[in-house]
Amino acid sequence: MELAPKLLEKGVKVIDLSADFRFRNHETYERWYRKSHSAKYLLAEAVYGLPEIRREQIRNARLVANPGCYPVSALLALAPLLRRKLVHLDSIVIDSKSGVSGAGRSRLEVGYLFTELDEDFRAYGVANHRHTPEMEQEFSELAGESVRLTFTPHLVPMIRGIFTTAYARLTEPLSTEDVHKVYELDYAHEPFVRLLEIGELPRVKAVVGSNFCDVSVVVDERTQRVIALSAIDNLVKGASGNAVQCFNLMFNLDERTGLWCGGIAP
Amino acid sequence: MELAPKLLEKGVKVIDLSADFRFRNHETYERWYRKSHSAKYLLAEAVYGLPEIRREQIRNARLVANPGCYPVSALLALAPLLRRKLVHLDSIVIDSKSGVSGAGRSRLEVGYLFTELDEDFRAYGVANHRHTPEMEQEFSELAGESVRLTFTPHLVPMIRGIFTTAYARLTEPLSTEDVHKVYELDYAHEPFVRLLEIGELPRVKAVVGSNFCDVSVVVDERTQRVIALSAIDNLVKGASGNAVQCFNLMFNLDERTGLWCGGIAP
Amino acid sequence: MELAPKLLEKGVKVIDLSADFRFRNHETYERWYRKSHSAKYLLAEAVYGLPEIRREQIRNARLVANPGCYPVSALLALAPLLRRKLVHLDSIVIDSKSGVSGAGRSRLEVGYLFTELDEDFRAYGVANHRHTPEMEQEFSELAGESVRLTFTPHLVPMIRGIFTTAYARLTEPLSTEDVHKVYELDYAHEPFVRLLEIGELPRVKAVVGSNFCDVSVVVDERTQRVIALSAIDNLVKGASGNAVQCFNLMFNLDERTGLWCGGIAP
Amino acid sequence: MELAPKLLEKGVKVIDLSADFRFRNHETYERWYRKSHSAKYLLAEAVYGLPEIRREQIRNARLVANPGCYPVSALLALAPLLRRKLVHLDSIVIDSKSGVSGAGRSRLEVGYLFTELDEDFRAYGVANHRHTPEMEQEFSELAGESVRLTFTPHLVPMIRGIFTTAYARLTEPLSTEDVHKVYELDYAHEPFVRLLEIGELPRVKAVVGSNFCDVSVVVDERTQRVIALSAIDNLVKGASGNAVQCFNLMFNLDERTGLWCGGIAP
Repeated sequence: MELAPKLLEKGVKVIDLSADFRFRNHETYERWYRKSHSAKYLLAEAVYGLPEIRREQIRNARLVANPGCYPVSALLALAPLLRRKLVHLDSIVIDSKSGVSGAGRSRLEVGYLFTELDEDFRAYGVANHRHTPEMEQEFSELAGESVRLTFTPHLVPMIRGIFTTAYARLTEPLSTEDVHKVYELDYAHEPFVRLLEIGELPRVKAVVGSNFCDVSVVVDERTQRVIALSAIDNLVKGASGNAVQCFNLMFNLDERTGLWCGGIAP
Repeated sequence: MELAPKLLEKGVKVIDLSADFRFRNHETYERWYRKSHSAKYLLAEAVYGLPEIRREQIRNARLVANPGCYPVSALLALAPLLRRKLVHLDSIVIDSKSGVSGAGRSRLEVGYLFTELDEDFRAYGVANHRHTPEMEQEFSELAGESVRLTFTPHLVPMIRGIFTTAYARLTEPLSTEDVHKVYELDYAHEPFVRLLEIGELPRVKAVVGSNFCDVSVVVDERTQRVIALSAIDNLVKGASGNAVQCFNLMFNLDERTGLWCGGIAP
Repeated sequence: MELAPKLLEKGVKVIDLSADFRFRNHETYERWYRKSHSAKYLLAEAVYGLPEIRREQIRNARLVANPGCYPVSALLALAPLLRRKLVHLDSIVIDSKSGVSGAGRSRLEVGYLFTELDEDFRAYGVANHRHTPEMEQEFSELAGESVRLTFTPHLVPMIRGIFTTAYARLTEPLSTEDVHKVYELDYAHEPFVRLLEIGELPRVKAVVGSNFCDVSVVVDERTQRVIALSAIDNLVKGASGNAVQCFNLMFNLDERTGLWCGGIAP
Repeated sequence: MELAPKLLEKGVKVIDLSADFRFRNHETYERWYRKSHSAKYLLAEAVYGLPEIRREQIRNARLVANPGCYPVSALLALAPLLRRKLVHLDSIVIDSKSGVSGAGRSRLEVGYLFTELDEDFRAYGVANHRHTPEMEQEFSELAGESVRLTFTPHLVPMIRGIFTTAYARLTEPLSTEDVHKVYELDYAHEPFVRLLEIGELPRVKAVVGSNFCDVSVVVDERTQRVIALSAIDNLVKGASGNAVQCFNLMFNLDERTGLWCGGIAP
């Protein structure tokens, strides 16, 4: 928020990878990030940069706020249901699991040493992670109504990837097939969302090094709960890859430019 | 179920590590395990072998069914709330993450090769894992009322450990401190359950090689949802260690005999 | 050796990834691989496909034998010294460490399960690995004299990469600087060999996903032994990437076509 | 060296885990560790604390210098050959591979973060690691003649364990069986050295959490080189476990007291 105003004044378009322009409401930002916002006047203009939900706005934006890695995975997992209000809005639980690169290289703390993380699994930021209000803002926009949700991030002993397991209760009885059809409507033509066949489940290894988000959805008919699962590479679709996708839209390039590769496996 | 009847006839007490005697209702067993039960007459007598919820019955049992690894972690995470019906019984989600040793050594499938699992994270058995009815049976017993829940297991690239994140909605407004006190009532004198201080969270590395189950509980006051977290070593408290604990009870030994060690770290 | 003759007859150039055409002497092949050779008449024509030592021959070859992964790493580590006979030919020890993908996906054995390899390190094929005679043949060619060496492969709990530590005694007193200059002569213009600065050492992570081979060389002046270290991605420079490099030469393309990328990190 | 003199004066026996009392010659210490020695007068009395080579001296010692982790693995791999001078003393190469816990928890450097070490393999301290003179001193003692060797340590993406591959040329033609018999003479009655059967090779996983050192030896008859392999847990036999073994000897306890357990696997 220090740099962006100066760049915009000079006519330079900005894609910001920080959280500074992700919130429409500066109070939300100030409460969760514990600092005051020095460029509030830009918040109304800034576009939340997830092409799958705001493609047209991104095309015309001067200032794009690249989304957080967890929100990308949660939004792509549940957006089709939120848009159509097929789930109870107070029933959403987002359980996410991230590779360690999310912490960044500057995180020189004992907890990020190899011997502390290898062969360990743990939660962190329970009920207070900063990506919670970001998810709530975008879910609320999609549903046209205020959404409050519970989000729990975890740390997996792997380098890259985010896997999200999202839960919500259906408002009416639907089968896995029914819900899958709804997802097809939204994702059939998305270049970077791969809706898996019924019976298949996402895995992190299938997206590492790529800008793809793999999604599948299952209805637990016994409890009328939908379980939506997604996998992304947190350093690509969850960060710079998504930013390049926005860049392509902003400069009228093929959306896949520089991103059309399959990653690395094994 | 082939061997146990013969051993019991000879006066030998049995702790069974399979699922054969975990269900009171043989139909539940037959539906989820897809085979008929050949010793139904023993199901009424068999005791579900989790000392923290059935200590006295285990002491007097001839036949103990050692619990599944996921149910141990889920039951110890939520039992204090279920017993007191402090949560809505239709709101329970169990999101579990397991190390790979849970698959066993005989699982010679491509999916369990090092190169497939290392640097990967994935879900499996979504909405249909066999430990679901086992959790439901015991949760229902604790609550005195039928419970249906959603359970999702995941595979973590580590050898040992299960981490469970359990979600449920509170029936009345409670703070983390309130709920923590309830847990203290149940766990203060349990030798193998370590209720962590408020602000601390379980991690798998703290229990590997030991029979301990680390538990913590957090209330997400924004959504009135409780998040209960637990960590066990799936090969100890989740299997043979718990069986030894039952053995100690059945033979009137100190419950900690052979189990009182701190595991291995890092 | 079944397929290649037929393809060659039809005028198709062949790059063989198996070991069938790596040996000039069919007896060596038959002794180490324990099967008879059905296309001996092609062995004189086949070119050992390591561009860094046989670039011109590869350009004109009809049949190229793509080298084994370990020999690539060993040859690139020591070739400059062998060519100039700066080391005693009976003093060579090759100690190599490989990621698990070298075993291939079809290796459905208990020893390749995640729980067996993770957190383990072991040697295998001690004094009898099939890549030994392949290294000896090429080292002998470079030195113009018969070379016998000791080779030990090891298995590292990582997916990709081979790291080789090669030892040999100098025939005359030389410093690290002296030897480094010799390597510069050979490698300054090699597109895929990166000779590191004195003081830097190779690491697998720097080459994963790329066709590069990082090399450094150190003289242990106390013992007059040279230690040459190399790192490659066994699935790229150690296999298909090197084959593409040969293909580029055989079809008169820029040698870097399809290979000029930096891999993936972290 | 600050604390030990004071403790000894008070009649307290000392087992020092630092390098301060490992060298008989204070100049060697001062050259490799780059500081002056403040208790030189104790060096003649201090006993190098590896029970397998100095058991009787340790029993009667007031001051024991617990050995470095790499030297333990190298000495146990080659001692039987050095004692009998069955190898050329200028032909020894020690290639060691260590788990990351060797670096200690206080090593807060970028290079020890999970994302830097996971899926990587690298060498360090090439031709200048401080454990080199420690190995040379003890090898020289065993052989009764000055030994100079080359030592290369490497970092493996695992938490615990050291694996050493030691090379040396035989002074006379011997088979694997011959050399194995020599090792049996020395190790048949050692409580913590497990000489493996011919054809078996050590692996780190077999010793993790235990004080055992697994050893095997192979003769490469083609080159008349012996390859001796050893595996230890660097935090047990390579550190505190070995110290407890010395303690047991110094206080006339059964040497296995507190150490007689099998570790943890998988």
